[in-house]
Amino acid sequence: MNKQFNITIIGSGNVAFHLGNALYNAGVNIVEVYSKTYKNAYTLSKQLNAKTVRNLNELSNNTDLIIIAVKDDEIINVVKKIQQKNTFIAHTSGSIPISVFDNLGITAYGIFYPLQTFSKEKKININEIPFCLEANTTKNLKLLEQVAKTISNNVYIVDSNQRKILHLAAVFACNFSNHLYSIANSILTKNNLSFDLLKPLIKETANKIEHSLPHQAQTGPAIRKDKQTIDKHIAMLKEDEDYKKIYELITNQIIKQSNG
Amino acid sequence: MNKQFNITIIGSGNVAFHLGNALYNAGVNIVEVYSKTYKNAYTLSKQLNAKTVRNLNELSNNTDLIIIAVKDDEIINVVKKIQQKNTFIAHTSGSIPISVFDNLGITAYGIFYPLQTFSKEKKININEIPFCLEANTTKNLKLLEQVAKTISNNVYIVDSNQRKILHLAAVFACNFSNHLYSIANSILTKNNLSFDLLKPLIKETANKIEHSLPHQAQTGPAIRKDKQTIDKHIAMLKEDEDYKKIYELITNQIIKQSNG
Repeated sequence: MNKQFNITIIGSGNVAFHLGNALYNAGVNIVEVYSKTYKNAYTLSKQLNAKTVRNLNELSNNTDLIIIAVKDDEIINVVKKIQQKNTFIAHTSGSIPISVFDNLGITAYGIFYPLQTFSKEKKININEIPFCLEANTTKNLKLLEQVAKTISNNVYIVDSNQRKILHLAAVFACNFSNHLYSIANSILTKNNLSFDLLKPLIKETANKIEHSLPHQAQTGPAIRKDKQTIDKHIAMLKEDEDYKKIYELITNQIIKQSNG
Repeated sequence: MNKQFNITIIGSGNVAFHLGNALYNAGVNIVEVYSKTYKNAYTLSKQLNAKTVRNLNELSNNTDLIIIAVKDDEIINVVKKIQQKNTFIAHTSGSIPISVFDNLGITAYGIFYPLQTFSKEKKININEIPFCLEANTTKNLKLLEQVAKTISNNVYIVDSNQRKILHLAAVFACNFSNHLYSIANSILTKNNLSFDLLKPLIKETANKIEHSLPHQAQTGPAIRKDKQTIDKHIAMLKEDEDYKKIYELITNQIIKQSNG
């Protein structure tokens, strides 16, 4: 790092916690931490050797970047209350567009979005997390890039429209996959089998995307067009109308895709 | 290990390769390897310091267990050709029931099923793989257990009926999740975004099952009942009828589950 950045953190939740710690450990100077819950701001600021701020109108002017890491629907309120109109402000949300900063007299703004799911208890390798960046000018984008590169090797320029696409894709790959894990768990539990049996296979299935494209790695009765097994499975699901519908829909699409 | 086992391996594919190597490294004596492709049997037998067998009617009698690790639809043919009716024979398939050994005069038989997806190029931690065992007598089950425990800490007794359930659950959690990865990849590629962006999130989603039950770890617009985002996503999918159907079906089920 050529220049030492001075950064203000707003928020004390999972994202603020992991980002703050990663930046601090990378040698960034965390100037101060604000959170609507003072106690949480205090705890995090102590970890980061930073000041605790009690009110949003008491933020310092001596900072290069204010990072807003609060819940999606609170972002607009925080943005409106910040009086440092000439300080660079960025939020960390994947679903709030850059237009949230419009018409407020703010001169430098952007998005600093780490594409990962965080929980405080779980250590995370921040280095591997893709950071999706957007800013109102090329110069500002450059600064966000410099900050992101102090903590991650995966820095991407992603505009608000692309971020919407990304979010939709993540719903399929992550939220919906997790629902399929739920179904598997419920099928096993109902039959007195432990979900532990499936865990290594689930993890290996996810790890395979590192080495092959998912449609090339597809296995199972649908891609084999093993009608006998498919019919048996559908019969086994006769009392779970919802699961049966998912089974039939996805099976038919895998077969169709393999034909196409 | 108290006793050194003598084991014959039939097959030279992914399962035979990983099982053979794991057993050999655990100190098991691999007596011989047979494969319908002599060259493959030869290669594997050299790795395992074992004899190569050219024909199924030339198998040794001096073995404690014959492990059949061949394709599902070849198992019955192999079983029929083995002349060692008094040697313990087990196959490694998740979907062929134990009845495949019926009425052939075989006295000791069972299933030795590693619940994992294997590829030769990819190293696998065999120790974490669940082994699902079944045998025709309690004594024989005991022997399979002893063998499995030389290479894995996760040994389960699973009968043929439970194995069917397990397979159905695995189709949801693994085959179908992989199809959702495919959809995500296709949505991203169509919009000039790299699938790499999603990989860390996909892996973290799969890793989360280690610490929380999947329905408790559910995130995303459906579980938040975020109708605005859901409607936007459905609008974005208007040209992909198949993806839209999956989106609507799974979203509705997540909402329903959260209500129930």
